[in-house]
Amino acid sequence: MQSVMSSGPSLEADSVSILRSIIPGLESTKHKGQAGKIAVVGGCREYTGAPYFSAISALKIGADLSHVFCTKDAAPVIKSYSPELIVHPILEESYSIRDEEKSSISAKVIAEVEKWIERFDCLVVGPGLGRDPFLLDCVSNIMKHARERNVPMVIDGDGLYLVTNCLDLVSGYPLAVLTPNVNEYKRLVQKVLNSEVNDENGTDQLLSLAKGIGGVTILRKGKSDFVSDGKTACAVSIYGSPRRCGGQGDILSGSVAVFLSWACQCAAKGEVSMNPTMLGCVAGSALLRKAASMAFDNKKRSTLTGDIIECLGISLQEICPV
Amino acid sequence: MQSVMSSGPSLEADSVSILRSIIPGLESTKHKGQAGKIAVVGGCREYTGAPYFSAISALKIGADLSHVFCTKDAAPVIKSYSPELIVHPILEESYSIRDEEKSSISAKVIAEVEKWIERFDCLVVGPGLGRDPFLLDCVSNIMKHARERNVPMVIDGDGLYLVTNCLDLVSGYPLAVLTPNVNEYKRLVQKVLNSEVNDENGTDQLLSLAKGIGGVTILRKGKSDFVSDGKTACAVSIYGSPRRCGGQGDILSGSVAVFLSWACQCAAKGEVSMNPTMLGCVAGSALLRKAASMAFDNKKRSTLTGDIIECLGISLQEICPV
Repeated sequence: MQSVMSSGPSLEADSVSILRSIIPGLESTKHKGQAGKIAVVGGCREYTGAPYFSAISALKIGADLSHVFCTKDAAPVIKSYSPELIVHPILEESYSIRDEEKSSISAKVIAEVEKWIERFDCLVVGPGLGRDPFLLDCVSNIMKHARERNVPMVIDGDGLYLVTNCLDLVSGYPLAVLTPNVNEYKRLVQKVLNSEVNDENGTDQLLSLAKGIGGVTILRKGKSDFVSDGKTACAVSIYGSPRRCGGQGDILSGSVAVFLSWACQCAAKGEVSMNPTMLGCVAGSALLRKAASMAFDNKKRSTLTGDIIECLGISLQEICPV
Repeated sequence: MQSVMSSGPSLEADSVSILRSIIPGLESTKHKGQAGKIAVVGGCREYTGAPYFSAISALKIGADLSHVFCTKDAAPVIKSYSPELIVHPILEESYSIRDEEKSSISAKVIAEVEKWIERFDCLVVGPGLGRDPFLLDCVSNIMKHARERNVPMVIDGDGLYLVTNCLDLVSGYPLAVLTPNVNEYKRLVQKVLNSEVNDENGTDQLLSLAKGIGGVTILRKGKSDFVSDGKTACAVSIYGSPRRCGGQGDILSGSVAVFLSWACQCAAKGEVSMNPTMLGCVAGSALLRKAASMAFDNKKRSTLTGDIIECLGISLQEICPV
């Protein structure tokens, strides 16, 4: 696996072709929403940057609308980052409510999300979600509703903490994508396969993990990214940057959400044969890696996540010129 | 000393070589956090710019993660300056709490900080801290916990006010760095050496002061910066700018924190022989002076602290090209 981890040519996905195959045409007859409506569930008292990075990345890649569902405390801050986002201050954390209010508030949260959920082409669950038990309980309910309505979900950060502790939320749902980093992957492997991460045989273990969660798609982030839906596996090793500033995972989750929604449109029209979740992961990974590489060329050690987001558009244009 | 203050060749540190010797390699096998996790303790109802400048400077120099622990009032503002920071609204000032709540709130603050403190490679205490007695009391407790866990600390601004009044917080702690300006230095000399600042014999006095506080490292800011850990002393006189806009000390504290954490990594691997706190101070001072000089060349009298922060990356790149 170690050699494959570096640049295994056999596993490497043709990410440029994949990107080109799923990107939608830009026609002036289209109307608002047809290029994608994404929602990020995340943002709490502690974290506001992560949901912003994820949601704004979706827009910068070409989605038409990008929503954020966050706590009341986080909403004004996230709104202040950009007027481009639609930010719903509907979640609550334990510290701000009394025990006897919990069930009514939980019902209100779901009622609010219910109004919107079917309109979304993809949900991103987890950026800056935090770990408040009451909040995570509400988010579990949101995920159940999204699943009932067949809304694809990309799960990252504290969403992975939630899912690792309650695999039923995604198990057997083919429209779920998990995007673990080193530590999150380790916890998933321990929980699902009851073993340690084994890089000697990394691809097989990734296949087993995805199969073990009933065929969800896993994008394992690292020096090379690896993707599997339990049936096939591939790698994305092109481009990339050595800078590891926090927030790049948030760009990735927003990016995968957009490409996944486009891939699903293609799949519905019979234009692609590969699993759309796999296509979304490969495209999202390749674009982030290219944007990170361009930002690093320019800013070097000083590169921040915001600098990478500014390179999403030009990176996409270089791969798929309009 | 007056001559040494200007450009004493014997004392001058080889800051460029020091910078190059401690800066970590950029390898794509590394993961998030390995290039440094910094936390700033500061930010109250009155001050929000200072902790932002310190924390964002750490990121722009190459740290992977930068946190701020501030009051509840300050948090939304600091968050809104940049989504790149992780801002924890945990501190309280006297005006917002009742006397009978103080001990329970104090315990909650410590419990919250406890969850995080061991993960940080360096703490910056003081930027925009203010002088509320209850808040300073909580910060004293945070400093005691950091010290027990051997987390290095850079102390500036109102953190120096706190420390000058309670020397035990840092006395004998070799991982403490104090970064006083003219007035803060004067108060330290009066308190510790029971005398006035004597520039005729400035280096000896600085050595005595650092020794008098049990071997902490002191970075005395001025036309030239002077650094001593009580055993040796050196100066940083290269670059620099005549503009004295407020906030440059905050860049310096964030900058010293990153370099100090890198120097500690090198020391742990036996790659450097000099005291890592001294190395961190020299590197931080030199980089700020170069960035200030570049910003001044461009903006002249109009130079603000934000303009200097924008020059950190290119300054670092010129000294240590990637």
